[in-house]
Amino acid sequence: MDIKRPKSKQPMPENAKRVFKGVIYDVYQWEQEMYDGTKAPFEKLKRPDTVVVFPVLPDGKILMTEQEQPMKGSFFSAPGGRMDEGEDVLTAAKRELLEETGYEAEEFILWNAEYPVGKIDWVVFVFVAKGLKQVSEMNPDSGEKIKLMPVTFEELLELPEKEDSFFADQEIVHKLLRARIYPDEMQKLKELFKPKEMVQ
Amino acid sequence: MDIKRPKSKQPMPENAKRVFKGVIYDVYQWEQEMYDGTKAPFEKLKRPDTVVVFPVLPDGKILMTEQEQPMKGSFFSAPGGRMDEGEDVLTAAKRELLEETGYEAEEFILWNAEYPVGKIDWVVFVFVAKGLKQVSEMNPDSGEKIKLMPVTFEELLELPEKEDSFFADQEIVHKLLRARIYPDEMQKLKELFKPKEMVQ
Repeated sequence: MDIKRPKSKQPMPENAKRVFKGVIYDVYQWEQEMYDGTKAPFEKLKRPDTVVVFPVLPDGKILMTEQEQPMKGSFFSAPGGRMDEGEDVLTAAKRELLEETGYEAEEFILWNAEYPVGKIDWVVFVFVAKGLKQVSEMNPDSGEKIKLMPVTFEELLELPEKEDSFFADQEIVHKLLRARIYPDEMQKLKELFKPKEMVQ
Repeated sequence: MDIKRPKSKQPMPENAKRVFKGVIYDVYQWEQEMYDGTKAPFEKLKRPDTVVVFPVLPDGKILMTEQEQPMKGSFFSAPGGRMDEGEDVLTAAKRELLEETGYEAEEFILWNAEYPVGKIDWVVFVFVAKGLKQVSEMNPDSGEKIKLMPVTFEELLELPEKEDSFFADQEIVHKLLRARIYPDEMQKLKELFKPKEMVQ
């Protein structure tokens, strides 16, 4: 499976030059022609893409996490994190799932991939993983404290109400809310989160 | 009315140093102590805050805009834009409303104020404006093309479905979706968007 970045509605122009290289963010600038023919300096950021995994356990529960990070406090989220340089998307999803939960999965379904912020060249890839198997203890890095928090599908649908602590890609929040408005979206979501049938 | 920035859940630490000053984004870095006692370089951005105004016309329609900007294509949104340096929030809201629509308003109600992206020190202030009066032609800057598009309250509620072209603060999209799930949120939203009664 070769997962590609989606096409950006605001792609980085070819003449953009990197003017700063940061720890996470690089800054690019270029001269942009305006509607009246004048030019103005424009700016856009680039940062490593993010992978997020919603793991569906054999009993149908979704393996969420309660995490704590320096400067960020505690929050409730699906496992995930920044991609390493040169790493491909699926490898990153598998690595983050294993590091943060100790689980491997047989199947990764791409649920969503989007640029969440207009002026940043940054994609968030969101997966649903099935056929989960615990293979080790979790192994978070020095900047993470993680507790596993399985939730039912019904609880997942209500996570957007926990405004203060639920940390998720906004398009995912929209999908969860829309499923409660449109029966056909609810049907699709139930299908997506149905646990993999175990082969005996 | 003195409108303050909300408290950030991830405030810029005192020892953060500005390492780059851009056209829009400034980059700050600091040494962060991790859970195992080691230190790691951390980074956070700062950019000018944004004001957004949902203007309610005397007939109850909401004055949205169809805008075009270089590198961004065309999108449907409420009037708004970046605050100028040193400008206060309400002044910026009045200025953007006037520039992009030619209207002034008697009343500005703060609907939402939040930090939409964790690693960016950036607040989006969202207002509902009432008692609208057209006082001039619109006066967009050289990087904007704007068409006025009044919508009914019912049409506003369905804008989140226009995924590809509706450009809005995510928390506003959530509020519009949640109003369709929870009757009490719908009631509050109807109250908020009720046009101002005209004094005869």
